[in-house]
Amino acid sequence: MERVWLYDTTLRDGSQREGISFTVEDKLRITEKLDQLGIHYVEGGWPGSNPKDAEYFRRVRRMSLRHARIAAFGMTRRPGRRAEDDENLRALLEAGTPAVTVVGKSWDLHVHRVLETTLEENLAMIRESVALLKAHGREVIYDAEHFFDGWKRNPDYALATLRAAQEGGADWIVLCDTNGGSMPWEIEEGVEAAKRAVSVPLGIHTHNDCELAVANSLAAVRRGVRQVQGTINGYGERVGNANLISIIANLKLKMGIDCVTDEQLARLTEVSRFVAEVANLPHDSHQPYVGASAFAHKGGIHVAAILKTEESYQHIDPARVGNVKRVLVSELSGRGNIVAKALEFGLRLNPEDPAVQAVVRRIKELENEGFYFEDAEASVILMLRRAHPDYIPPFQVLDYVVMVERREGRPPVAEAAVKVRLDGEIVHTAAEGNGPVNALDAALRKALLPRYPALSRVHLTNYRVHILNGDAGTAARVRVWIESTDGQRVWRTVGASTNILEASRLALEDSLEFGIDPTVDHR
Amino acid sequence: MERVWLYDTTLRDGSQREGISFTVEDKLRITEKLDQLGIHYVEGGWPGSNPKDAEYFRRVRRMSLRHARIAAFGMTRRPGRRAEDDENLRALLEAGTPAVTVVGKSWDLHVHRVLETTLEENLAMIRESVALLKAHGREVIYDAEHFFDGWKRNPDYALATLRAAQEGGADWIVLCDTNGGSMPWEIEEGVEAAKRAVSVPLGIHTHNDCELAVANSLAAVRRGVRQVQGTINGYGERVGNANLISIIANLKLKMGIDCVTDEQLARLTEVSRFVAEVANLPHDSHQPYVGASAFAHKGGIHVAAILKTEESYQHIDPARVGNVKRVLVSELSGRGNIVAKALEFGLRLNPEDPAVQAVVRRIKELENEGFYFEDAEASVILMLRRAHPDYIPPFQVLDYVVMVERREGRPPVAEAAVKVRLDGEIVHTAAEGNGPVNALDAALRKALLPRYPALSRVHLTNYRVHILNGDAGTAARVRVWIESTDGQRVWRTVGASTNILEASRLALEDSLEFGIDPTVDHR
Repeated sequence: MERVWLYDTTLRDGSQREGISFTVEDKLRITEKLDQLGIHYVEGGWPGSNPKDAEYFRRVRRMSLRHARIAAFGMTRRPGRRAEDDENLRALLEAGTPAVTVVGKSWDLHVHRVLETTLEENLAMIRESVALLKAHGREVIYDAEHFFDGWKRNPDYALATLRAAQEGGADWIVLCDTNGGSMPWEIEEGVEAAKRAVSVPLGIHTHNDCELAVANSLAAVRRGVRQVQGTINGYGERVGNANLISIIANLKLKMGIDCVTDEQLARLTEVSRFVAEVANLPHDSHQPYVGASAFAHKGGIHVAAILKTEESYQHIDPARVGNVKRVLVSELSGRGNIVAKALEFGLRLNPEDPAVQAVVRRIKELENEGFYFEDAEASVILMLRRAHPDYIPPFQVLDYVVMVERREGRPPVAEAAVKVRLDGEIVHTAAEGNGPVNALDAALRKALLPRYPALSRVHLTNYRVHILNGDAGTAARVRVWIESTDGQRVWRTVGASTNILEASRLALEDSLEFGIDPTVDHR
Repeated sequence: MERVWLYDTTLRDGSQREGISFTVEDKLRITEKLDQLGIHYVEGGWPGSNPKDAEYFRRVRRMSLRHARIAAFGMTRRPGRRAEDDENLRALLEAGTPAVTVVGKSWDLHVHRVLETTLEENLAMIRESVALLKAHGREVIYDAEHFFDGWKRNPDYALATLRAAQEGGADWIVLCDTNGGSMPWEIEEGVEAAKRAVSVPLGIHTHNDCELAVANSLAAVRRGVRQVQGTINGYGERVGNANLISIIANLKLKMGIDCVTDEQLARLTEVSRFVAEVANLPHDSHQPYVGASAFAHKGGIHVAAILKTEESYQHIDPARVGNVKRVLVSELSGRGNIVAKALEFGLRLNPEDPAVQAVVRRIKELENEGFYFEDAEASVILMLRRAHPDYIPPFQVLDYVVMVERREGRPPVAEAAVKVRLDGEIVHTAAEGNGPVNALDAALRKALLPRYPALSRVHLTNYRVHILNGDAGTAARVRVWIESTDGQRVWRTVGASTNILEASRLALEDSLEFGIDPTVDHR
């Protein structure tokens, strides 16, 4: 198979996703990760559009990247002016990147209704903009916006725009399914038509509006396209862009295309989680290849089969993409599962160790009370620690009181008081919060921070409440699940009780204790 | 184009997703929604596996469904015994469903290593199991597990298993990509091979491990497959099953296949959100077609273009799938919806009534704060009552204090005090409870019962807590949903706040007020 070049636009198109807002520092850290992953082009932003992007391009020049060429993004010149005089194109050149991506219109509707110019002038805008950038020695990637929509309505004109880019000297012509509405067979036909019209190497840029962005990218590669544009985790406007994570895995593992090395492929899970973390979004545990559940096995039949032969219920070896098989720990698990789980956290146990047996028994008891450990490994690790005779707890919550008060129609007030034992000393303190659980969380942190300043880096990334027997009404048993991070590791803890505050206290206590000492291989 | 039959397995394969646990009541309500959506087959569960599924099949028989045929799911008989004597097959027949789906092995590796029997015996197991079910008059759907993996390794044997199902008399043969590792072109080749081997109508069942489940399903339909299996929102083991929501939209809008009517298609967003709600999972706002962001526009250029011509940045009219452009506003947007909702509760309203308009506005405000009324009709009815000038509240909660206290390692104690106005009189009382929400519930009932003795019949049948923005940690916004009954009627109410007790108080108050006067046609 021929080579495929990977083009990442997480920092530009990806940041269009609702809720994402990268700082310059964030963008530089993501650039570094993308370089380590072996991405060939990193689109850093739109230099004309805001001062943040201009600063990024200044600073990225000082980074020593091994693989990635940085690309700046912009539009063709405006109608009725010379390319040399267009301030957007000038900003693009001033970004000083080796590659420049310039987007132009392929769809006559957009030329008439959005640009409000003539079809001829649009062709000149494309040709002259590309030519100007080439004249300044840039590698020029021409993005044909709405190519597939334009080609479906007015194929002659859509193809004429590609020819204009070729005449301008474009190094790449990238066919965009900007609205994400195309089917794979339409992508294939559009690529074939483009191949007949121009000889420049082609790229593909898709969106996921029909849940087909990955399929559409692969279909284009099968028809000879040599560059794939996408974003990490598929972040992007509306429902998102093509997910480069899945595309890289499919190209390499399913199509035998060496777009990255084996070592780079093994970083896929790490990069996916890193970008989610920087974007301040929960990592999707059901994401293909890299999600925490992507190789999780639950059902008894599946687990039995997996133990006999891994291939039976896994399409690939998860280690190839840096992920791990998870045999979910639950009521039904034996010592083998506990030992395997501890090993995932770097803790080597002897199955004959009485602590292991005690923990297996305890898990069964607690799962009867509503705990659920399959997604709360840190609570399991803490149980293993606590089962050992030489265990000394870093702190103990002796008492707590939480109060919610609402008077005379004013907003409710929540307040918590805690009494904590720390190295023989008693700390008694209190805090308010945004609801009772938050108040308890705040009071506990306030008590522990002076002694364990590292906890200032620990914060919760997710919080869930499950009502276990809703038919018991408000007296139902409640399970609280918490995900925490210190910026490096991620861990999950659980608590259960008929009292939601008690359940939260248990999960919070585990979260903080694990945060104080996340090195599990402590013995 | 020919017809395509839709087969939903949310209640069986979908419930394998980590964290999903449906009650029988949940499953019946989802069945009703799927029927309204026009799904042709609803797989209800695995009758041999647990008492909950057995109860579902008993109760679903009494429902009057317009479209959906209910299917029970099970495995072929065990090796070395007669089909007649197999307790799993017997349980399948006892479920009393018009359709039965039976899964068998297509991959020789699984026959040897997992079933631990001979290739010949597996063929007999398939043939005889299908024949037994046919002899009892069932429509038999044969699921060929791991068909594509088996066909890649040992094509002759994989095709022989399909022939065995055909010999047994199967009405459908469904080709399964159980491990989700196949590429669209492999699916196409496998379907072609199956078409040459058997004449029974074919179906497709895919998983999303390569982010290609939707594409693989469509590829199979293009090669002549006539049944598509999937789940709502793609819920399922590991990364999930094929997402029927996207498949239905693509079949209908992109391929012109009339698998559902226009009216049913317009319920797609509603059904997607409803199932997420019942599954207690946040609805994915970036889900294709139905997510809150699917037609949201952020970039300035896009928004300007959209204002000039909608088609410019939208691949379809969102109304066709029941979604809206810029969806941050409520789903229940129009007065017509409110009038229709009230009518469901026997309350006839005039859409020009200012109370209706006020409620529409209020719903939009509250849904922005995290309420969700689609599944909380009683709260909507109460809003309509309260919007009327002649409304007199049966009671008013003036103040409340809730306290949780845990001291010296003893179990935590929860206590609530409430001050309630009842016909001008002030009742001030307190109660303990099994957790803070239960204590508040108990105190409110204690205050109201002497005046409204009918409330003694009212009790909660279900209680759920949704964390809306879990990434905010313990300060996250919380939605509380309560289902209540007086033994005759069932109603549902909702509350939301960053304080779980305040959210519970709102839902409880609505539940009790509705319980005092459940005859909605009160004017």
